[in-house]
Amino acid sequence: MENEQIDIAIIGGGVSGVYSAWKLKKQFPDQRIVVFEGSDHIGGRLLSVKPPEIPNMTAELGGMRILENNQKLIVSLIETLNAALPPAEQILLYDFPVDEPQNLAYLRGEYLRLVDFVTSPDKVPYNMSFLEKGNGPGAIIVNAIEQIVPGITNPGLTEEERREMTREAYFDGVPLYQWGFWNLLYRVISSEGYQFSMDAGGYDSTLINWNASDAIPWYLSDFGISPKYKGFTNGFQQVPIALAELFEKDGGDVRLEHQLRNFEYTDGQFTLNFNTGQTITAAKLILAMPRRALDLITPGSPQLQQIQPLISSVTPRPLFKLFTTYANPWWRIAGFTSADGQFVPVQSGRSVTDLPVRQTYYWPNSDGTPAVNGRAMLLASYDDGSNIGFWDGLRPKRTEAWKTGRSHAKISDPFIGDDDQQNNSRYTAAPDDQLNQTWDEYQAPRRMVTEVARQLQQMHGLDYTPLVKSAAFRDWGEDPYGGGWNSWNIGVKSWEVRDQITYPISGVPLYICGEAYSDAQGWVEGALQTAEIMLGKFLQTPLTEARQNNHVNQLQPS
Amino acid sequence: MENEQIDIAIIGGGVSGVYSAWKLKKQFPDQRIVVFEGSDHIGGRLLSVKPPEIPNMTAELGGMRILENNQKLIVSLIETLNAALPPAEQILLYDFPVDEPQNLAYLRGEYLRLVDFVTSPDKVPYNMSFLEKGNGPGAIIVNAIEQIVPGITNPGLTEEERREMTREAYFDGVPLYQWGFWNLLYRVISSEGYQFSMDAGGYDSTLINWNASDAIPWYLSDFGISPKYKGFTNGFQQVPIALAELFEKDGGDVRLEHQLRNFEYTDGQFTLNFNTGQTITAAKLILAMPRRALDLITPGSPQLQQIQPLISSVTPRPLFKLFTTYANPWWRIAGFTSADGQFVPVQSGRSVTDLPVRQTYYWPNSDGTPAVNGRAMLLASYDDGSNIGFWDGLRPKRTEAWKTGRSHAKISDPFIGDDDQQNNSRYTAAPDDQLNQTWDEYQAPRRMVTEVARQLQQMHGLDYTPLVKSAAFRDWGEDPYGGGWNSWNIGVKSWEVRDQITYPISGVPLYICGEAYSDAQGWVEGALQTAEIMLGKFLQTPLTEARQNNHVNQLQPS
Repeated sequence: MENEQIDIAIIGGGVSGVYSAWKLKKQFPDQRIVVFEGSDHIGGRLLSVKPPEIPNMTAELGGMRILENNQKLIVSLIETLNAALPPAEQILLYDFPVDEPQNLAYLRGEYLRLVDFVTSPDKVPYNMSFLEKGNGPGAIIVNAIEQIVPGITNPGLTEEERREMTREAYFDGVPLYQWGFWNLLYRVISSEGYQFSMDAGGYDSTLINWNASDAIPWYLSDFGISPKYKGFTNGFQQVPIALAELFEKDGGDVRLEHQLRNFEYTDGQFTLNFNTGQTITAAKLILAMPRRALDLITPGSPQLQQIQPLISSVTPRPLFKLFTTYANPWWRIAGFTSADGQFVPVQSGRSVTDLPVRQTYYWPNSDGTPAVNGRAMLLASYDDGSNIGFWDGLRPKRTEAWKTGRSHAKISDPFIGDDDQQNNSRYTAAPDDQLNQTWDEYQAPRRMVTEVARQLQQMHGLDYTPLVKSAAFRDWGEDPYGGGWNSWNIGVKSWEVRDQITYPISGVPLYICGEAYSDAQGWVEGALQTAEIMLGKFLQTPLTEARQNNHVNQLQPS
Repeated sequence: MENEQIDIAIIGGGVSGVYSAWKLKKQFPDQRIVVFEGSDHIGGRLLSVKPPEIPNMTAELGGMRILENNQKLIVSLIETLNAALPPAEQILLYDFPVDEPQNLAYLRGEYLRLVDFVTSPDKVPYNMSFLEKGNGPGAIIVNAIEQIVPGITNPGLTEEERREMTREAYFDGVPLYQWGFWNLLYRVISSEGYQFSMDAGGYDSTLINWNASDAIPWYLSDFGISPKYKGFTNGFQQVPIALAELFEKDGGDVRLEHQLRNFEYTDGQFTLNFNTGQTITAAKLILAMPRRALDLITPGSPQLQQIQPLISSVTPRPLFKLFTTYANPWWRIAGFTSADGQFVPVQSGRSVTDLPVRQTYYWPNSDGTPAVNGRAMLLASYDDGSNIGFWDGLRPKRTEAWKTGRSHAKISDPFIGDDDQQNNSRYTAAPDDQLNQTWDEYQAPRRMVTEVARQLQQMHGLDYTPLVKSAAFRDWGEDPYGGGWNSWNIGVKSWEVRDQITYPISGVPLYICGEAYSDAQGWVEGALQTAEIMLGKFLQTPLTEARQNNHVNQLQPS
């Protein structure tokens, strides 16, 4: 395999990588196109596994949903794929459950239901202003955004129109892209209103200090203006797996467990060095990778060193997911009996708390309905931001696994529950199941499961909760991801960097794409958006041309 | 200067560096001993500057005090120095003001005085347990510690006895050094008790998830058991400056603006490469540097790569200080009129808030008395931990200055107040003044001063506060420091690493010391402690010996 020559090398088997591969192979059926993926599976930060003993649920250890009404690229991709896929492999969606009014908010040691935010504002233990009181966290932030950029919350606007507004907007004489979102929010709402929005919102990293010009339209798309979430019946990972399979069917080549170490562009060729010891040359190179992965290969890669300011324009945000399974959906009892004697259970959407466990999703069946009896599953904790430090004390380090060629950390002291001990009764993938990753590969740290269970009991106001049967854990802060999503840094003109980084050095056929440098950071939509921009540039570059003027596309729109 | 040969090279002109230099020069008067300092001044994270128009105050942009009753090394060093120094240069101390009961705590949008924590527990807006209520933040943590290690808060114990207890202690079957402090506190106090201790304590990073075995005795020494703080009449930086001057008087050599880039040990010699282009060889090498500074020179330094696990056993904790001056001490008005008609002003110690400004010290005169009229100064914000992210939006990046050879970031949009515009009236250092750094060199970012002023007004409950006359700012998160202090990582046996890192590779005359790897992290006492351990090993190593067996002293006590 030494001195192997290929036409197009794509590094990274996440959505943006396999999507680009699939599209390019159709355009150039005769080119040798290879996708190299460092881990042992396709999907990147989409990772769907089946829990033991619960055949009608799929745990999403990575991305878990789309916004159907404004993520046009993914919606249209699913349509295209379904037209190409056999009936048994169709990608099916369900309505991802929304938060119900009876769900819990355990905040500052007080038990509330979500409905109390609006109906019983005096119960909410935050010293908010007159105008803030009686609003939920989303409404407070949307009102704040309207103060910062008047008119922007008009639901008649498109996302592109909103982005145009924030690109042009100033606050206090300073352009919005030079403001941190947190700093701006502090100027227009009370510190208690901010804290409530953070605590009750369930997420830490969305309201922190990232580029306000990007944060505002991003927030409005996700949380603000009538979002409509859809989940994936057979797991979101089905999408990149289908793309990779169609690419292979067309004659493309996917190689797993190939970590790129570094690369160099000389004499019109890329020389790629892999951890396998192989050296491969490629005429064109697409890096479909997030920032941390690019950072890891920058030493020894002169072309990446040349474009440092572009690469470092975003920050990876650590984030993890922990799923736990039980003999029954014990959380239903945390509901209440209404005035007419009807019991209203807690069973879908999520509950929130300011404890480090932060938010718990009552995981739905594969058709979106709630589990009402028998084996059931929680996305017990979906946690980002400052509470990451709490859990750091109870789990492995984030940089160890990648160095040794593994795709995720081996847990030295794993949680072993009843459903883990009875190995024979484990769920076995049906032969036609496309998911090649299994629940068992993503063990959770024992001490972490113990602490999560303790906090779940407390946030539900229960003196007893049944034992965890099994648990699965994925920490996206681990190398090579560095985070579950990336956010634009303050001071960056993202609309320029987004375009420049896709084809950063004139005359060098090097391309970069992925969620990290998109308008929809943290979403598959963002991966597709930058892949499309990148493919546009790719197709404009004559395939055989080797230019002389290798200047960096930096700070001027390209 | 090419191929210059010296006997002992000491890298770093902070306390541990100049202290070691001074001691070694006395022991070996004939050896060529040189201290290399990257910045343009001696002192490391001790940095004392005189504000304009306020001759009787010294702003401590770095370390500002000692604990007189249990920091024996610094107390005895001051005695020794005073015996050697002329009368005009004596190091004078004052009682560093403690928090007064009338000082403010603006927490969760409520105005309290510190005394309310104990006398009006129902006013305190935290939903604490029966046992926690009525206690101040220090008492809650001390009680928690007593639950974790019963008996340890007995005031009759020495610090060494307390350290022995935490080294041996287990919690829930796991040794204490494998626990994070935050994780343990969450097991013994309520989440609201924890949050109150964090918010009202004024510091973020002391209660976070660092090694519990170290955090507990550290906390008890600093906050727990009758601390007695002393400040420095002429600035703490006087101590390292005096040490450097005495070292030079004895024939030692101090070279400023020499950044070590990397080094190698071959054929019984260290080859040191500096940013000046100079290459110097040394028989022995002492690195008196914190972790981040070691990290910066590790690429290209094979001996440091060899001891990575030791170097990475601590984490630098970002921290900054911002001083502001005013025409008068306006904060005094935030006091109250007592029942007997007496006005009790707010004027010494500090006030705290959960706003990002976190804690404000009413800066004392050089004799420790409060400012009661005329020009006055605040340590407006002394901030660490999670609020660092808030201020990151309003100030320069932390890694830029060092790369270009500067010791701290140049502020592109500095705050300019009345006392800055009248340059002629600026305070001018007297010819005999030992401090060679001036206030003007540490400009504060304009937008940061504006936001701090806004929050100061809010936390004092005032509708008007006078204009800031001038401001000074130092961010210790900047390279090469990486943090204001360092904390031991969870899982590390600090008592082993502390000794091993001082002389990490048998047979290689390489020595490491400084606050970062000590029992008194964040204190000058820690710098002196590890310097003493290091000097003990240094003196045991025959000066001319070049051994063969270069094995790393790792994980076994040396």
